[in-house]
Amino acid sequence: MTIARLPSFENRIDRTSVEYMDNILGVAYPVLNYGHVRIIDYMGDDEAIVQAARMSYGRGTKTPSDDRSLIRYLMRHWHTGPLEMCELKLHAKMPMAIAEQWLRHRTASINKISGRYSILDCEFFVPEEDDMAQQSTDNKQGRGVPIDPEKAKLLRQYLLHSANESHEAYEHMIDPEGGYGYARELARLNLPASVYTEFYWKIDLHNLFHFLRLRAHSHAQKEIRLYAEVLLNIIRKWVPLATEAFEDYRLNSVNLSAQELTMIKGLLGVGAGRANSLEKRLEATGNFGTNISTREIKEFLGKLS
Amino acid sequence: MTIARLPSFENRIDRTSVEYMDNILGVAYPVLNYGHVRIIDYMGDDEAIVQAARMSYGRGTKTPSDDRSLIRYLMRHWHTGPLEMCELKLHAKMPMAIAEQWLRHRTASINKISGRYSILDCEFFVPEEDDMAQQSTDNKQGRGVPIDPEKAKLLRQYLLHSANESHEAYEHMIDPEGGYGYARELARLNLPASVYTEFYWKIDLHNLFHFLRLRAHSHAQKEIRLYAEVLLNIIRKWVPLATEAFEDYRLNSVNLSAQELTMIKGLLGVGAGRANSLEKRLEATGNFGTNISTREIKEFLGKLS
Amino acid sequence: MTIARLPSFENRIDRTSVEYMDNILGVAYPVLNYGHVRIIDYMGDDEAIVQAARMSYGRGTKTPSDDRSLIRYLMRHWHTGPLEMCELKLHAKMPMAIAEQWLRHRTASINKISGRYSILDCEFFVPEEDDMAQQSTDNKQGRGVPIDPEKAKLLRQYLLHSANESHEAYEHMIDPEGGYGYARELARLNLPASVYTEFYWKIDLHNLFHFLRLRAHSHAQKEIRLYAEVLLNIIRKWVPLATEAFEDYRLNSVNLSAQELTMIKGLLGVGAGRANSLEKRLEATGNFGTNISTREIKEFLGKLS
Amino acid sequence: MTIARLPSFENRIDRTSVEYMDNILGVAYPVLNYGHVRIIDYMGDDEAIVQAARMSYGRGTKTPSDDRSLIRYLMRHWHTGPLEMCELKLHAKMPMAIAEQWLRHRTASINKISGRYSILDCEFFVPEEDDMAQQSTDNKQGRGVPIDPEKAKLLRQYLLHSANESHEAYEHMIDPEGGYGYARELARLNLPASVYTEFYWKIDLHNLFHFLRLRAHSHAQKEIRLYAEVLLNIIRKWVPLATEAFEDYRLNSVNLSAQELTMIKGLLGVGAGRANSLEKRLEATGNFGTNISTREIKEFLGKLS
Repeated sequence: MTIARLPSFENRIDRTSVEYMDNILGVAYPVLNYGHVRIIDYMGDDEAIVQAARMSYGRGTKTPSDDRSLIRYLMRHWHTGPLEMCELKLHAKMPMAIAEQWLRHRTASINKISGRYSILDCEFFVPEEDDMAQQSTDNKQGRGVPIDPEKAKLLRQYLLHSANESHEAYEHMIDPEGGYGYARELARLNLPASVYTEFYWKIDLHNLFHFLRLRAHSHAQKEIRLYAEVLLNIIRKWVPLATEAFEDYRLNSVNLSAQELTMIKGLLGVGAGRANSLEKRLEATGNFGTNISTREIKEFLGKLS
Repeated sequence: MTIARLPSFENRIDRTSVEYMDNILGVAYPVLNYGHVRIIDYMGDDEAIVQAARMSYGRGTKTPSDDRSLIRYLMRHWHTGPLEMCELKLHAKMPMAIAEQWLRHRTASINKISGRYSILDCEFFVPEEDDMAQQSTDNKQGRGVPIDPEKAKLLRQYLLHSANESHEAYEHMIDPEGGYGYARELARLNLPASVYTEFYWKIDLHNLFHFLRLRAHSHAQKEIRLYAEVLLNIIRKWVPLATEAFEDYRLNSVNLSAQELTMIKGLLGVGAGRANSLEKRLEATGNFGTNISTREIKEFLGKLS
Repeated sequence: MTIARLPSFENRIDRTSVEYMDNILGVAYPVLNYGHVRIIDYMGDDEAIVQAARMSYGRGTKTPSDDRSLIRYLMRHWHTGPLEMCELKLHAKMPMAIAEQWLRHRTASINKISGRYSILDCEFFVPEEDDMAQQSTDNKQGRGVPIDPEKAKLLRQYLLHSANESHEAYEHMIDPEGGYGYARELARLNLPASVYTEFYWKIDLHNLFHFLRLRAHSHAQKEIRLYAEVLLNIIRKWVPLATEAFEDYRLNSVNLSAQELTMIKGLLGVGAGRANSLEKRLEATGNFGTNISTREIKEFLGKLS
Repeated sequence: MTIARLPSFENRIDRTSVEYMDNILGVAYPVLNYGHVRIIDYMGDDEAIVQAARMSYGRGTKTPSDDRSLIRYLMRHWHTGPLEMCELKLHAKMPMAIAEQWLRHRTASINKISGRYSILDCEFFVPEEDDMAQQSTDNKQGRGVPIDPEKAKLLRQYLLHSANESHEAYEHMIDPEGGYGYARELARLNLPASVYTEFYWKIDLHNLFHFLRLRAHSHAQKEIRLYAEVLLNIIRKWVPLATEAFEDYRLNSVNLSAQELTMIKGLLGVGAGRANSLEKRLEATGNFGTNISTREIKEFLGKLS
């Protein structure tokens, strides 16, 4: 038991880097009227995912599948460990109410501007007139058709006025000279949830995908979705293979319940002697134009048998 | 700002309890040759899930759906927060190598017997002869056909002998009188991974479902699957509605990738003018005998359009 | 490998319960003008902590120390695992801005009322006049001396008026009949951070102590501290031994840096030949009236040598 | 509400890098007979901690303290959020029993070689003769005085022999040709806990400090401590200010309980009219040679009053 042996410097490796990311570090991608997303740093790439996955499967395995196949396999079978080996750090600015939704995701690191320490800027989110929608009638939580343009105009004027008034009052309250010198931690209580806040946020790729699955979803509030879409566009360039697999197996996939599977089988006539004809029908159509591997076809047919 | 107002004791509620669980607390359910699972305590029930979910959706929502529908809706749409409101605590005893798999699940609390403090018992897991399987030829990680019975007999004898020998050596090593007085933290290094260990484990229902999804899965190692199945049987009685939804939407569901969905639609002729005939075909068969709600049928058809 | 052995029902145990807690379940403890804390459920007690700790230390250990000593030992040496074996679930109602601080604690389960689904009530937090303080001059984040009473009166009137006005506007905006039918998820953006929100919250005792250490601290904002103090009073009755140890070793302890320790030793003349006189001086004063064990004295002297 | 505005590329920043780290990436630092630690990647540096902390405290704060003071302040007051903004990824190789201790730390990402997929190498940890220690007599879990050299020689021979025999049996069991073709997931159960395993591990700096506090501690098992010390040496070069603060405020600090504080005050005669003489005594000795700021002295005196 000794640590006297010298480190072997011949194994030195270069740091993983992705040119696209290096070019956009710090750049503010605008979202909403005053918000933005800025990538601050990142760790890893598609190759780093593969490297970690090969560790788990070790040397007893057969010849290495190519990276894309392996990443798709990991995604398909919920072997999400290797995805955690990539990490993203960003700086975001968004309305308080949207930040509250964002920060419900607990598996991330966060440093947010504090209204106890800092004087908040006079920046508020007020939707454009044609984004002012009515409560949805069929979806309990969402928005539906637009508000009448005349009314939207009035409403927008009111909201702008109200936000400015709140901020003026805030500044007067905290002003130690002409105002009240009111403590910031109390004065901020009177600011509306449309006020902008900022934070640093650091998350691994597995949890980022989970975040995007929920927040780039059509049921998410439009304002957070816009941020999620900016992020999705960026990670498509950062980890293209992982993002493709995420889109195929999570974002654009559907989950069939036990009952739905029964119905699909019924509709396809599986079990009525036509089961293995599916393979032939797929072949005849060139798998309906989907470009997937033999292994994926085999797993697909397995789901239906 | 005052806390002078008195608590309102008229709101007092009774503690949630489930009779089935109260009857089995502490009872050892045997698994493998020396292992077991014992439920020590629990928090919540199906009703507690519903209660928390109704908090999130609040009073603006329409009439309450019934509990089963709501729980199925939560599971279907990955609104997993309310599932975290139930908690299970158990005491398990299992081979070290199986415990290692078990404890890979990080979102749980754990107190495990320490080989630095304690003297480990002479209890080892050795498979029965007909459980001695060969390496699978098509699945890189699993086991395949049984070993020849003659060989299995020999192998088992060797393993029993080897385990006993290891333990005798262990006891001699740590014996301060006739032996070496060797530190326990070092002596245990020579014990095989088949030695039994014990731990307390506490986990919420959402994370327990995730655990069961992976460990009650046919790809999991048989030894851990046996423990998972014991647990699954118990939680079917503890939270029957949630477990039913878990089985329908996770355990026995399939996930269709974007490409698989394209193929299913192709096979069903959706998009070739036969789309809305699906609803009629389902009706004609009584939804192929699946007993699901109109809403679930609607969501199902939505997935295929 | 078989599960044929029958469960041994003779080991059945009763569920852990604490009479004090059973008597207050559901009871609303009022905090601030409209807020409260209500305990909904709990798991474990002091005994459950001890039980889990003994599992870790096992049978190789000497005679069991008594429960209080063991719990103090765990707390002193940061063996926090056994504390996670207790769990608390509560329902809280508090101003949005305070909830935001509360929910920064990530290791907890949460179900919060959603402003996208629900219509928020007209309940706002406005401090009493004598709680209206100025920004602290020596602490960058806190509050200092009270505002002049005349000014406080005016300020309070303004805040009450402003909150009511915001809520009236909110109700008009979302009113589908006489108003705008504006989507709730948008209308809520104009409500101030003083509006009340509600949530279910479930957390283990280790993380609850961490929460209380930060939020019952004199640097915490007074409003959240009031909630923390209600909780602290309750857990003193629930897990008295653990809470006592928490107060002694965390809440009312101080941490001495390496440099501070050097200075303390210098001030005490340790190392200048007076080291072991400390023990005698302690004895002479009856350990200055502190009622701690010989072992704790020994560890204390160890810190100073 | 639009994302039509163009990103502002003028804010582009360079990626954070630390030359020392770039030079050692991939280099294997040997530990024990066959183990090592290799840094694979990292994110952030001392400056990144400061940057995130300044976000939280924002623009309302006075002139920026220098980085060292700020980092020490964060560490002293348990504002650990900014530390999470740094991340380290490494590849480690260590005995299975040590890996088990390592992986008890749950807030990290992990990809470990799987004994179900891979054939494990014939590499075992056996202590050098002079590291073979007896069970400690005063510490229930640790090791004490060395074993008699003659006995150690015998013991070591036995352990080497036993490990080799186990591995030969393992290879024969899994050999599909001349042996039994026994499934790897079962054969590995007979290998001792001294067999080496490997894993990728990724963790943020806050949790890494917590890990080091426990595993570089004198109570930790010597074998894991050696790994922890290699890591500690590396991070001293990566984030020197944060590591210095960690050593001063965690690793080499002591925590005084409420009772211990009472006794210290008693011993120092605080409260007996000599309280503010402490400041003078410190001044007279140049703070006993500790090089700390006026603010830290002020906080120190605050702890004693």
